Amino acid sequence: MKTLGIIGGMGPAATIDLYKKIVEQTPAEKDQDHIHVIIDSYPQIEDRTSYILHGGKSPAPKLIESAKRLEAAGADALIMPCNTAHYFAKDIEKAVYIPLIHIVKCSAEAIKKKYPYVRKIGLIATTGTIKAGVYGDILKNYDLETITLNEELENNIMDCIYKGVKAGKTEEYSTLFQKCVDDIASLGAELLIAGCTEIPLLMPYIKTNLPVIDATYELASAAVKYALNK
Amino acid sequence: MKTLGIIGGMGPAATIDLYKKIVEQTPAEKDQDHIHVIIDSYPQIEDRTSYILHGGKSPAPKLIESAKRLEAAGADALIMPCNTAHYFAKDIEKAVYIPLIHIVKCSAEAIKKKYPYVRKIGLIATTGTIKAGVYGDILKNYDLETITLNEELENNIMDCIYKGVKAGKTEEYSTLFQKCVDDIASLGAELLIAGCTEIPLLMPYIKTNLPVIDATYELASAAVKYALNK
Repeated sequence: MKTLGIIGGMGPAATIDLYKKIVEQTPAEKDQDHIHVIIDSYPQIEDRTSYILHGGKSPAPKLIESAKRLEAAGADALIMPCNTAHYFAKDIEKAVYIPLIHIVKCSAEAIKKKYPYVRKIGLIATTGTIKAGVYGDILKNYDLETITLNEELENNIMDCIYKGVKAGKTEEYSTLFQKCVDDIASLGAELLIAGCTEIPLLMPYIKTNLPVIDATYELASAAVKYALNK
Repeated sequence: MKTLGIIGGMGPAATIDLYKKIVEQTPAEKDQDHIHVIIDSYPQIEDRTSYILHGGKSPAPKLIESAKRLEAAGADALIMPCNTAHYFAKDIEKAVYIPLIHIVKCSAEAIKKKYPYVRKIGLIATTGTIKAGVYGDILKNYDLETITLNEELENNIMDCIYKGVKAGKTEEYSTLFQKCVDDIASLGAELLIAGCTEIPLLMPYIKTNLPVIDATYELASAAVKYALNK
């Protein structure tokens, strides 16, 4: 069995959500059947979206520091419950000898497997993730098209993430989030990606007829398979 | 701000519960306000109760390995979301230079502060915790008396923990757990301690008129105060 390392704290609630999804997807009847997971919940890592949009202090050094800490502690592979942080995936990969299981690639592969006829993707993510092409570039390789959102819609999603989940006010932002999801559907999306690790925490409060890919769930699923050598 | 190290995985669900209680008790409006926490979720640590009752391979070496891993990774203090594992607290303290914030001492101090007139304690814990005196000896120093449970009641509690929560069947064991709590109340307990980290996960399913001290909550509370220097 392999040891997983989680570069976490971006934010803490999303870190709990990822670890919970790992535990739930592990076939186990007693403690000892579970995977050895080392979690570095390091919320002091600078805000990813803020850096991508406005510059300032880069989150890269602290991301690398965390990756190295986990590698030194014995992790065999790294995972990050923050989609936007994957903008720095190559910097992290260069700094350590262990692999990073990539959240976007896991999501793209899940779409191809579960919904092979889908083409138009509604990406629910931070403005940082969208602007930096964290998803768009990889989805293109899988023959998937990301639909473009307008500025108001992007701002509303950001409010749900930052003023909602990250500030501990998830339920209070559920009405605005329902509007975001309806707006994305009306733009022609055939499938939604919960492409920010705070988004799955809002999902239980809303309704949609579209299929949803939870990037956190897909990452957990791939990580469990890796750790158990399946 | 100090860095916390969690010796976890005993079991994974209890580890999530502790970290969630740390996050919820931290005054924070954004990711960066949260505490740096390194979690070593190491479920391969041998079963604590089984060792105390029947011997076999001691959990101590892996507990110490985890403590050292967290110390090397930069933790300033250790916490353990497993009451029974505190049987080995002194072994761990001897092996590292950083302090262990002790779950039983946190619980005893919380009782003295919140319910100063209480004397008779109903301890809901593993047979390992009870037999080894993990709570009893410390509670005595606080002038608190732990009431004695009969064997059937102890076995029922063990089933709720091992066949219920640890096996992912929490709700299925809630009826038996309600009976346990009622039986402890009828023995004259004035207060209940949820003295196994799996027990708080059963509490939402039952009813009781007695005040309850959640040892995990009190440990989280003390750890947050330590980390924020309050």
